[in-house]
Amino acid sequence: MNASCILQKVRNQKPLVHHITNWVTIYDCANIVKVFGASPVMAHAKEEVEDMVKLASALVLNIGTLTADLVESMILAARAANKKKIPIVLDVCGAGATAFRDHAVGTILDSSQISIIKGNASEIARTAGANIQTKGVDSTDVKQNMMTLAQTLAKRWKAVVVVTGQEDIVTDSTRVHRVKNGTEIMSQIVGTGCMATAVIGTFAAVHDDLVEAAAAGLCCYEIAAELAGKSTKGPGTFKERLFDHAFTLTHDQVDERQRILE
Amino acid sequence: MNASCILQKVRNQKPLVHHITNWVTIYDCANIVKVFGASPVMAHAKEEVEDMVKLASALVLNIGTLTADLVESMILAARAANKKKIPIVLDVCGAGATAFRDHAVGTILDSSQISIIKGNASEIARTAGANIQTKGVDSTDVKQNMMTLAQTLAKRWKAVVVVTGQEDIVTDSTRVHRVKNGTEIMSQIVGTGCMATAVIGTFAAVHDDLVEAAAAGLCCYEIAAELAGKSTKGPGTFKERLFDHAFTLTHDQVDERQRILE
Amino acid sequence: MNASCILQKVRNQKPLVHHITNWVTIYDCANIVKVFGASPVMAHAKEEVEDMVKLASALVLNIGTLTADLVESMILAARAANKKKIPIVLDVCGAGATAFRDHAVGTILDSSQISIIKGNASEIARTAGANIQTKGVDSTDVKQNMMTLAQTLAKRWKAVVVVTGQEDIVTDSTRVHRVKNGTEIMSQIVGTGCMATAVIGTFAAVHDDLVEAAAAGLCCYEIAAELAGKSTKGPGTFKERLFDHAFTLTHDQVDERQRILE
Repeated sequence: MNASCILQKVRNQKPLVHHITNWVTIYDCANIVKVFGASPVMAHAKEEVEDMVKLASALVLNIGTLTADLVESMILAARAANKKKIPIVLDVCGAGATAFRDHAVGTILDSSQISIIKGNASEIARTAGANIQTKGVDSTDVKQNMMTLAQTLAKRWKAVVVVTGQEDIVTDSTRVHRVKNGTEIMSQIVGTGCMATAVIGTFAAVHDDLVEAAAAGLCCYEIAAELAGKSTKGPGTFKERLFDHAFTLTHDQVDERQRILE
Repeated sequence: MNASCILQKVRNQKPLVHHITNWVTIYDCANIVKVFGASPVMAHAKEEVEDMVKLASALVLNIGTLTADLVESMILAARAANKKKIPIVLDVCGAGATAFRDHAVGTILDSSQISIIKGNASEIARTAGANIQTKGVDSTDVKQNMMTLAQTLAKRWKAVVVVTGQEDIVTDSTRVHRVKNGTEIMSQIVGTGCMATAVIGTFAAVHDDLVEAAAAGLCCYEIAAELAGKSTKGPGTFKERLFDHAFTLTHDQVDERQRILE
Repeated sequence: MNASCILQKVRNQKPLVHHITNWVTIYDCANIVKVFGASPVMAHAKEEVEDMVKLASALVLNIGTLTADLVESMILAARAANKKKIPIVLDVCGAGATAFRDHAVGTILDSSQISIIKGNASEIARTAGANIQTKGVDSTDVKQNMMTLAQTLAKRWKAVVVVTGQEDIVTDSTRVHRVKNGTEIMSQIVGTGCMATAVIGTFAAVHDDLVEAAAAGLCCYEIAAELAGKSTKGPGTFKERLFDHAFTLTHDQVDERQRILE
């Protein structure tokens, strides 16, 4: 597969990507979608989420700062997205930290057909039913059997599962893509995980093969991060340059740096 | 008119500008007001918005991530602002996207006397009753008759109407100011529209002629953007430098670059 | 005392710091904790705050954009924190601006044992019962008797009180530490006060002597700000470099620059 071709589809089609997300990284999620050439909209009122989905080409859900109201809106939006047959990405941010969070994930998965489930190793392990406690939103060292857990989870929910880490796993239970791009500094700053989810949603909006879409989105995003990391050592300036490089990213840069193992 | 004189009034008077805004750009809205030398306060609880208005010199409302609760708070705050006779700016962010959003705009306009209605071309067209569907928060190409629509809207609500775009329109239905400052990169990043609204509110807080205040605010803000755009090509670093340049903006810079057609 | 030793404890222990904070600076609060080497989690649903506290080593409360719901969650979280005997920092952001805000502060202080009360001069004066009206969230010139007010407040609530300003005061009513680090540009940008609170919470998470923890946290944070201020004159780029310098801060930099008067 060729990540730069899917990037080009994003830039050509400029899809509207509807987010119901958390209050911490909401700006970064919107902005990364924007600089990749698409059109973000953030809207969470239960009175309007279904109408907003009607305009959108993908729906991104993130439970980072969930409330009961927000989960209700997510379910309404997800059902509308299913009806419209647009992809839904669910970031199980912080899964395993509290019973409320785990219950919300379960309810969302039960109430709609989620297309892509995304998290770090401990979040995905927890969502797959492993008895692991997340330490906040940072990944624990539990990496044993991640592939098996991811594939089991994918099969259980008929979804693509994305596990982010030094090497990202993307699987629909039978096919597996591994994305080996990225840079260490991404883990030193708040928001890189949430932005990855937003980018996956953006690429899924324009490309029907969701394993490819997710892998290509991660790859392009992480290449922008590699380029940003080359010009700075600090996490503050890094993030601003990440936006710069996502915006100016060329096909050549992607083709040269793409490290996706299929 | 002379934009730099009104900028000086902002810096001298340091007005308190009360915002009830969206969760995406709330930081940027507060910070742009701060770096222009004024004092932002963001408060949305219905129990306190009326008290907060009593301390403020202007009220800025933005429906970007509205909920029913937030609209209720906006109306309480707007009525308190009318009572105190301080200007109110309403950003009709995303108008036309959903029925809920259009209804909220109608309710706010009906419940209070809004001083300045601000949006991009499609949002203003929709607010003026044109049958246009906004694609998220980005402007559609509908530019035909914008001047007529803006003037009609201004007359209908006895308000100043601001339409942002490559060339901004500011009109109270009889007078028209066009602001030709700004730079292309502003449209490549999330938040520039919301910040423009915050700046208009800040300038309106210190200058009674609201056509002049809105035009001067846009002009100074867009000159800061021009200067920021000169030193960077990327949208991430651009935004940080926009704050830098708004903070250090001199009278000479404004006087040399001001492009307001009256 | 030696601030760099406590910084090292933060980096070694990587404590989880739970925040219930405002929507303006929520990203900056999370990120400053992260770049100092700890692990932030932002969660405010009343259904999960008690569970989240069980994972945390400190709790940070900030009433910047409070609502009735948020205050309810803060009280639940604070009581759970008391039960677990982890420190709680309360930023009385905007105290004095509205009756609702003052009432919330009173209710939180009455309902739990707050470990550290933090604000600028006018906020602390108001919390101590002085008849002062805050102008938004910026400090007024009321500095007379600040030491007496801070000590009275500390005694009244058996808490450490932190008053930020050009010279920060940290007192538990008997002991006093003054932190003289920092740079003027910190006051020109939104979020530096909220971030200071988040850092105080982070240092309190690893060091039982809360006067020392608060002073060390402020000191390290303000030294990072001094270093950031040296390389930029603008408030936008300043903030990004503040994150960079907090991340790369060395023991030598802290030891050379530490200005804490005990």
